[in-house]
Amino acid sequence: MGAFLFASQWDDDAGWRAHMERNLGPLDWRRLDAIGRQEEIEVALAWDPPPGLLASLPNLKLIVSLGMGVDHLLKHQDLPAGVPITRIHDASLIDQMAEYAMLASLRILRLSDDYDALQRQAQWKRLALREAFDLRIGVMGLGAIGARVATDHARLGFPVRGWARSAKRIDGVECFAGAAGLQPFLSGTDVLICLLPLTPDTRGIVDARTLGMLPRGTHVVNIARGGHVVDADLLAALDSGQIASATLDVFNQEPLPADHPYWRHPKVRVTPHIAGQSNPRTAAPGVADNVRRRRDGRELHDLIDPAAGY
Amino acid sequence: MGAFLFASQWDDDAGWRAHMERNLGPLDWRRLDAIGRQEEIEVALAWDPPPGLLASLPNLKLIVSLGMGVDHLLKHQDLPAGVPITRIHDASLIDQMAEYAMLASLRILRLSDDYDALQRQAQWKRLALREAFDLRIGVMGLGAIGARVATDHARLGFPVRGWARSAKRIDGVECFAGAAGLQPFLSGTDVLICLLPLTPDTRGIVDARTLGMLPRGTHVVNIARGGHVVDADLLAALDSGQIASATLDVFNQEPLPADHPYWRHPKVRVTPHIAGQSNPRTAAPGVADNVRRRRDGRELHDLIDPAAGY
Repeated sequence: MGAFLFASQWDDDAGWRAHMERNLGPLDWRRLDAIGRQEEIEVALAWDPPPGLLASLPNLKLIVSLGMGVDHLLKHQDLPAGVPITRIHDASLIDQMAEYAMLASLRILRLSDDYDALQRQAQWKRLALREAFDLRIGVMGLGAIGARVATDHARLGFPVRGWARSAKRIDGVECFAGAAGLQPFLSGTDVLICLLPLTPDTRGIVDARTLGMLPRGTHVVNIARGGHVVDADLLAALDSGQIASATLDVFNQEPLPADHPYWRHPKVRVTPHIAGQSNPRTAAPGVADNVRRRRDGRELHDLIDPAAGY
Repeated sequence: MGAFLFASQWDDDAGWRAHMERNLGPLDWRRLDAIGRQEEIEVALAWDPPPGLLASLPNLKLIVSLGMGVDHLLKHQDLPAGVPITRIHDASLIDQMAEYAMLASLRILRLSDDYDALQRQAQWKRLALREAFDLRIGVMGLGAIGARVATDHARLGFPVRGWARSAKRIDGVECFAGAAGLQPFLSGTDVLICLLPLTPDTRGIVDARTLGMLPRGTHVVNIARGGHVVDADLLAALDSGQIASATLDVFNQEPLPADHPYWRHPKVRVTPHIAGQSNPRTAAPGVADNVRRRRDGRELHDLIDPAAGY
């Protein structure tokens, strides 16, 4: 292949280069600040690239999303036609997402915030015990990450239900599907974990209407994309008590502005989009394999359908 | 059987009575504040009973520890000779202990305290990623709870090692045993989780000597008994940086006195002995089964060896 463009300001350029070269041998590797001759670039590894950049590469043969979601690529609508888009499949990233979701659920189950507050008052007080089998986990989105989060929770004894656009079967998980399944799914969920892809259909799905379908006192965990949540509606539901807490790793605007009410809301936990960080060591072998397949004209894996949005 | 004495000020008297009667039919059930005629009592369900009480019951046939540890019974050395002691085997309690340990490990792995502090400053800052396969979990004590905690961690991708008095084999866990195995075990542990029984051999096992065998920056989690830890040594190790944090659910004195330095130490998390709370719904059937076995002269399960201390 020709030159590689590393089109991300977030990811680990040196790590990706090292691990790609470990798999493919020495590469003509270029960064956003030194693209060189555009016609030489045949592979782009991208996270939220500048608008128009990918369309300006006349000989591009493969676009690799450096995240498992691809909304950061599809949002511009100016992608070069006919160039296949694949995404990383990163076992480490999936592990991290599963850990983050489990940590959020366990903090809720074991009343961590309440016990932390009691410690600040040096107060020895046992609170009513809540057991895992009484805390219903609802996972929205049952792709590779959602399915893993659902089964991990089921194994620890939580009752788990899942919702996806199309019908799925996962051992030990009660699955709901489509528009008709949303209300029945939400009405039996005590901790809602959002792991959907961000598409025109799912943008703003966590709004006043769906929050109102949850039992009073449900907890919301969003580790998918900020665009899934209508912030004003979530804040109103937190203030009314409809929602007990929100654990948010992703936001409509990132970095989250310093004056955003989420930062200081007593019922909101904010983390800076760290639930899953791609690791070139675990992700590069799959990307390198797709580069070889593209070169040899073989079928690609982890291919995106731009029409579906994932 | 004759009368039952519920000798605990901590546990759920009404719940235990209801679930024992569900299994055995109506019982002559007595509480510490209304023991009645001592010779009528044949079964005692006990958690940290008043010294001398059990020895004063001439017709006692069975002592049931309401916890999985029995140090609260054995410490008095005045138990009636020849009366068998069993302990509860509570699946719910084991689940809770496993949750608590996993929550502690995930908070450490995912830098929860650091991200919570950044949120208080409304600061969007990503910290260096630590992955599960780089955080070595060391479980001290490989009984029912320790083995479960070890395998749960291994399944989530942590490297796990365990230490016990005698040699054990647990799939996916590197096991060390006895005095000779302690230093090799500790020297490769990043998170030390104590789940030992409290016996004369293990009292004060977490002291300056063993803390010094851990790599600098190890985290300590104690959900066994307060007596395992020499508090002054742990505080010194926290202050020197040898130990990065301590998550403590159990204490040499409980309730932990309001002026104890643990409460306000920035590197210590205190919870009020809530890691595992026995649940009469899940524990009573096994206790009732032992009551029937004792009545019929059959072999008991979950029997304690007072000489071993567990």
